[in-house]
Amino acid sequence: MAHVFEQLGLIGCGLMGGSFALALKRAGLVKRVVGYSKSPSTTERARQMGVIDVEAPSALLAVSGADIVLLAVPVSATEATFKAIRHLINGNMLIMDVGSTKRDVVDAARRVLRDHIGSFVPCHPITGKEVSGVEHADPDLYAGRQVILTPIERTQVNHLKRAQDMWEGLGCKVEQMSPESHDAAFAAVSHMPHLIAFALMNGITGQAQGQEFLSLAGPGFRDFTRIAAADPKMWRDIMLANKQELIAQTKIFQRTLDAMQAAIEAGNSEALESMIHQASTTRAHWRISSHKK
Amino acid sequence: MAHVFEQLGLIGCGLMGGSFALALKRAGLVKRVVGYSKSPSTTERARQMGVIDVEAPSALLAVSGADIVLLAVPVSATEATFKAIRHLINGNMLIMDVGSTKRDVVDAARRVLRDHIGSFVPCHPITGKEVSGVEHADPDLYAGRQVILTPIERTQVNHLKRAQDMWEGLGCKVEQMSPESHDAAFAAVSHMPHLIAFALMNGITGQAQGQEFLSLAGPGFRDFTRIAAADPKMWRDIMLANKQELIAQTKIFQRTLDAMQAAIEAGNSEALESMIHQASTTRAHWRISSHKK
Repeated sequence: MAHVFEQLGLIGCGLMGGSFALALKRAGLVKRVVGYSKSPSTTERARQMGVIDVEAPSALLAVSGADIVLLAVPVSATEATFKAIRHLINGNMLIMDVGSTKRDVVDAARRVLRDHIGSFVPCHPITGKEVSGVEHADPDLYAGRQVILTPIERTQVNHLKRAQDMWEGLGCKVEQMSPESHDAAFAAVSHMPHLIAFALMNGITGQAQGQEFLSLAGPGFRDFTRIAAADPKMWRDIMLANKQELIAQTKIFQRTLDAMQAAIEAGNSEALESMIHQASTTRAHWRISSHKK
Repeated sequence: MAHVFEQLGLIGCGLMGGSFALALKRAGLVKRVVGYSKSPSTTERARQMGVIDVEAPSALLAVSGADIVLLAVPVSATEATFKAIRHLINGNMLIMDVGSTKRDVVDAARRVLRDHIGSFVPCHPITGKEVSGVEHADPDLYAGRQVILTPIERTQVNHLKRAQDMWEGLGCKVEQMSPESHDAAFAAVSHMPHLIAFALMNGITGQAQGQEFLSLAGPGFRDFTRIAAADPKMWRDIMLANKQELIAQTKIFQRTLDAMQAAIEAGNSEALESMIHQASTTRAHWRISSHKK
């Protein structure tokens, strides 16, 4: 049974943060939500929509009196946000983030939170939406999704357990791994696909007939490039934060692509079919890991 | 108003052919379907399912008495199929294919059909399904989809018009272009995404932690790699048939990917954001061209 929190301090009232507040409220896991966003109009909108109950004039004041805090800000703003709130952090407060990279977030936490780092449980809920903003906040965003927790050696077990119970209370499947393993895995299965999708789009539009080509694209292209519509600043930050792993994955991908290209150029039908067969079989057997299929 | 055909000769009773027969029947555009598949069990299954009315023991006999013929075979089997049926082709017969590449199909038609080439209207319906086989035949497969016709100078206008009216009668949006333009466009927006999706899957599974990485992948990965589950023989054939355009697109894509990678390695935040922004804006404004959205 998940613990019921008194007050959520929500920093960042966009899609991720707003959806979290709505989900936590609906599950009956929090009594009150105090929210802050960098943009006052977002904070006001969040209150008007009932996503938050009270508007805070600063990140620090959003944390005041909270027993659970969620940072739902771009990963590049994590360190500054920690700095803004550290004076009001206490050992009874569960602090979490929802960033798509974890090593940089953990490093920022180590630098800024110091003695309070035990309260911080780094989280990455695996959701997929190419829209942003509180107007798209959805209490079902996290339901059935996987959430990765990347505790470090100084994370307190009581906070880790509360975080796990809380996400499970929202219908999530929770996994734990190291920040390093997390970043390697998501470079491969998330950051790399985004990078490829961006590059493919730009490669097409850079051609004289690019617009005509795009007008002919079908459902396969639609699904393949869906992630290319993602938020530029957010993805710039993710890619720079996870540079090392991403570059490593780029090299692996390029080698595999080169091998397929060589088979095509050589007209090596057997080798090409075998490579496609391997990919096709792997993908046909793959299932998304979540409660809902 | 589309012409009502007396008899469809269907060669290949799989997903594409079976769905076509069902759609044509439901639209009241054909009275009788005679079908042939290389595998007798497929032909029998198609008859049992009501996809075809009569089983033909050969491709030639499927064509006998037909006023409309559809080749729904792998592109690599097109030439052999033309050879198998050419003795029964007459000038009143509309012959079409549904292949994903058009230059190779047109070349095969020129070589084999000769004086009867005017009856042949090369077609490419843009559908998206990663399943195959007559058991997935679906009368709605083509509804609302785009169909590209790639007539050549010797194509007869009466047949071209009948083909256009027929596809429109199935609820398709019909476009015409040259076989060369078709193959260049689909190398960019279809064949290249498939090649990339295959390479990405193989790059991941080739890593020691590949299976663990895959178990963490989310909805973005699911949609991005959906096309990687496509049929290996079909895609081997498409890639080899459209080798030249595909290699050209691979080079363009690799240059774009290299540029993004360089920006990441250099930590050039501004350049990276600008590239992602371009891709994101293009994709956000793109809409699939079809009657249904």
